[in-house]
Amino acid sequence: MTGPRFTDLIARLPETVPFVGPEGMERDRGARFSARLGANESVFGPSPFAIAAMQDEAADVWKYADATQHDLKGALSERLGCAPENLVMGGAGIDGLLGNLVRLLVAPGDAVVTSEGAYPTFNYHVVGFGGELHKVPYRDDREDAEALFAKAAEVDAKIVYLANPDNPMGSWHEGQGLERALAALPEGCILALDEAYIEFAPEGTALPVAFDDPRVIRFRTFSKAYGMAGARVGYAIGAPGLIRAFDRVRNHFEMNRPAQVGALAALDDDTWLEEVLRLVEEAKARIGEIAIENGLVPLPSATNFVAIDCGRDGDFARKVLSALLDEGIFVRMPGVAPLDRCIRISAGTPADLDALATALPRALMRAQEAG
Amino acid sequence: MTGPRFTDLIARLPETVPFVGPEGMERDRGARFSARLGANESVFGPSPFAIAAMQDEAADVWKYADATQHDLKGALSERLGCAPENLVMGGAGIDGLLGNLVRLLVAPGDAVVTSEGAYPTFNYHVVGFGGELHKVPYRDDREDAEALFAKAAEVDAKIVYLANPDNPMGSWHEGQGLERALAALPEGCILALDEAYIEFAPEGTALPVAFDDPRVIRFRTFSKAYGMAGARVGYAIGAPGLIRAFDRVRNHFEMNRPAQVGALAALDDDTWLEEVLRLVEEAKARIGEIAIENGLVPLPSATNFVAIDCGRDGDFARKVLSALLDEGIFVRMPGVAPLDRCIRISAGTPADLDALATALPRALMRAQEAG
Repeated sequence: MTGPRFTDLIARLPETVPFVGPEGMERDRGARFSARLGANESVFGPSPFAIAAMQDEAADVWKYADATQHDLKGALSERLGCAPENLVMGGAGIDGLLGNLVRLLVAPGDAVVTSEGAYPTFNYHVVGFGGELHKVPYRDDREDAEALFAKAAEVDAKIVYLANPDNPMGSWHEGQGLERALAALPEGCILALDEAYIEFAPEGTALPVAFDDPRVIRFRTFSKAYGMAGARVGYAIGAPGLIRAFDRVRNHFEMNRPAQVGALAALDDDTWLEEVLRLVEEAKARIGEIAIENGLVPLPSATNFVAIDCGRDGDFARKVLSALLDEGIFVRMPGVAPLDRCIRISAGTPADLDALATALPRALMRAQEAG
Repeated sequence: MTGPRFTDLIARLPETVPFVGPEGMERDRGARFSARLGANESVFGPSPFAIAAMQDEAADVWKYADATQHDLKGALSERLGCAPENLVMGGAGIDGLLGNLVRLLVAPGDAVVTSEGAYPTFNYHVVGFGGELHKVPYRDDREDAEALFAKAAEVDAKIVYLANPDNPMGSWHEGQGLERALAALPEGCILALDEAYIEFAPEGTALPVAFDDPRVIRFRTFSKAYGMAGARVGYAIGAPGLIRAFDRVRNHFEMNRPAQVGALAALDDDTWLEEVLRLVEEAKARIGEIAIENGLVPLPSATNFVAIDCGRDGDFARKVLSALLDEGIFVRMPGVAPLDRCIRISAGTPADLDALATALPRALMRAQEAG
């Protein structure tokens, strides 16, 4: 027996995992983190109505969820001003939907464009389906829409990925500027616009083109502002021809039933959403103050996290990060230069940020000693 | 704009969906079903401890779940007598894991073998990755292991699918017989052994070969005996080399957090599992009595459902099914001859089966009048 006969594509894939979760890191270090600020989760939690809805549905978990997400799609389409036919939902969040989009469009050797340092899980899917990744550098800590679309034209890309607002830098584009840039998107290329953080962004950040526009597919989620990362409810909005195609490949019954009911309740609770947005703004301001007190520079952010420029190179920032982890503060950082001069801190509770305020000067001292 | 540039494979795929869920059927008929007996869900629900665990975890749904499922895999491996390295878990149930297995092994044109009338979702994945499906008929309402393995040798299959116990017929193979048949599985072919219903089966049904045996990968789930279909927690057990490969393609953060905690609690509650098995046996006996009272023949079942032979052809059984749906009883039936002489009824509560007992004679009368 020579082992499984993997496809050629699979046999060539690396065994790398896009992200290691905090639970695994806690087991490795033999202690819990005192602040969980590394995955841009919403520490403020979901709407109390969403919690109650999930609890009420728990006893009915013996039933598969509605595979068409009829009620949730209805509520979402009403809120967004689109048709249910513009929506596809996924039970593995935006991650799963990005994977399915890549599978629909990218055959081995097909070109895909993204930014150097942008979302690793998108790249994981592109590589996983044999796509050819082409990367464009950030410009001034923002994804460079013009350069991305020009690269897409140059390499005949099937997909160009852009997050607005951006992760990991927290930067953003004004929607009208992005719309103008879109004129240069080549025929036959689709913009995968990741709007996971759109609820946190200033008015005018969302792209002002019709949901039916065949050039764009947008990705949104209940994981961030709605505080339901562990529920795994994401959705994509796009032209019906592309949206319908997801039905050819998706796992139709993948969504958790209480999660589906919880998302519906969360969507209905604008009071909670506004409260979360307020708490996130306070937390970001506090993170900025802590950074400045320590001689570091917080970057402007349209998300629920702040990238802090540690003022030196990636090696130094990695030492700061490592020391923060040792101090019990779970944070992450961008993977490539020049973004990797920063560490990325999610909005936390006042207690979380007290812990950060205590840990950061010690971490900086250790990083400077080690450097 | 000519529409999305789908891959050639995707452009050729049909738009068929393996299953329409009962919620969609209820909307189409404009009324709720009075008994939900079509999807082999466990009407008896999950363990009360699993419900409580999910409810307790609801407020923590802002956190992503542990992507390695450390605690749940630890408990499962202890129970099964395998290593955690023998386990991969999936947040889209067995469906999602089957899709990933196909993706790992099946390139366009590669051969795959299954039975004519077996699980449609497996076929959906094979077609979805461009595999060539070869089908073998059931023999005496059982999947024909010898014929499946002989066909696999003939067509150089990468995977052969077999469910034990079987869905949709409820039949089963004794484990030792299956082990003997396995000697004829050709080199380089993996048996995808779907054991979704194994907890309901008689002692000795599970395949008595080591979990490390590289010829077999088994699929199990919390959807059936554990009553958690809406939680979407499935797992596969196999040799570490194959299991590890799932990490190259799976959505690492796909599992719902309360579901993961709930499954752990469910696994620990053998008292509830035994109670469910007892209730299922009672329900199957009652379904058998109802069938016999109506002049029909219940087939023996090692699952949580009973296939009832309606005594004529597929057209007649489809009329019975359609009339039952009209009467408010959600049931399903096998898709191809000769299995489609049967309708398939999941174990229900006494109230569900009272409704079935009332509806079945009326449905038969209508089917006979229509015939």
